[in-house]
Amino acid sequence: MKKVRRRSFLTQAVVATAATAVATPSLANTAKKIFIHHVYFWLKNPSSEADKNKLIEGLTALSKVPTIRFHHIGVPASTNRSVIERGYAVSWMLFFDNLEEEEVYQKHPIHLKFVEDYSHLWEKVIVYDSVQV
Amino acid sequence: MKKVRRRSFLTQAVVATAATAVATPSLANTAKKIFIHHVYFWLKNPSSEADKNKLIEGLTALSKVPTIRFHHIGVPASTNRSVIERGYAVSWMLFFDNLEEEEVYQKHPIHLKFVEDYSHLWEKVIVYDSVQV
Repeated sequence: MKKVRRRSFLTQAVVATAATAVATPSLANTAKKIFIHHVYFWLKNPSSEADKNKLIEGLTALSKVPTIRFHHIGVPASTNRSVIERGYAVSWMLFFDNLEEEEVYQKHPIHLKFVEDYSHLWEKVIVYDSVQV
Repeated sequence: MKKVRRRSFLTQAVVATAATAVATPSLANTAKKIFIHHVYFWLKNPSSEADKNKLIEGLTALSKVPTIRFHHIGVPASTNRSVIERGYAVSWMLFFDNLEEEEVYQKHPIHLKFVEDYSHLWEKVIVYDSVQV
């Protein structure tokens, strides 16, 4: 634990949960309750690699909002079963400490600028906000 | 880095990425490419708290599949905008090191047992598999 304590409190929670997940997964829920904000983007031009890359560039800049504890920018994997949704172009997954920090993100100037500069690229977004049980 | 090196390699990737996300978010993508498997469950009896808790109990057991690097069991947050999907009952988010490890999970006896014992509870699942860019 000593090593973990030297880290910042914010990092610690993710570290503790991740470490728990590897060692004793059932205990992971005793750690901080992570708020997940997961967004899937469908592009106006789904076949445009340039538009996809531009969106990824925008998300990379967006990841600098300070209340984000962890971010993951993804694209659909090659897995393909009937229950798998593969039509989206980019996945944007964020960890927050709580709902309030996510609301700070929503109103943050970097986020507002991202929407202003990049929203012309997407046709649809679906958002799933989930609180750890 | 010394502290990180003492951890297992598998934990290390998540720790490194998480730490990077806090300190310098734009560098997070230089770390290991995490495979996210995110499943959303819609219950046959959406109003049944008992069924929801039973599914959560099943997922907690399922989290013991050894290739899972991180898991998060969630429920819809109170956020409510037109783009937010709130109809699902439970969110199940997993990190894997790569596609192959996710395939091990799919075929693992704990996973097969979970489907056998709990699939009567859900009406629909949507799966999003995303690979970090």
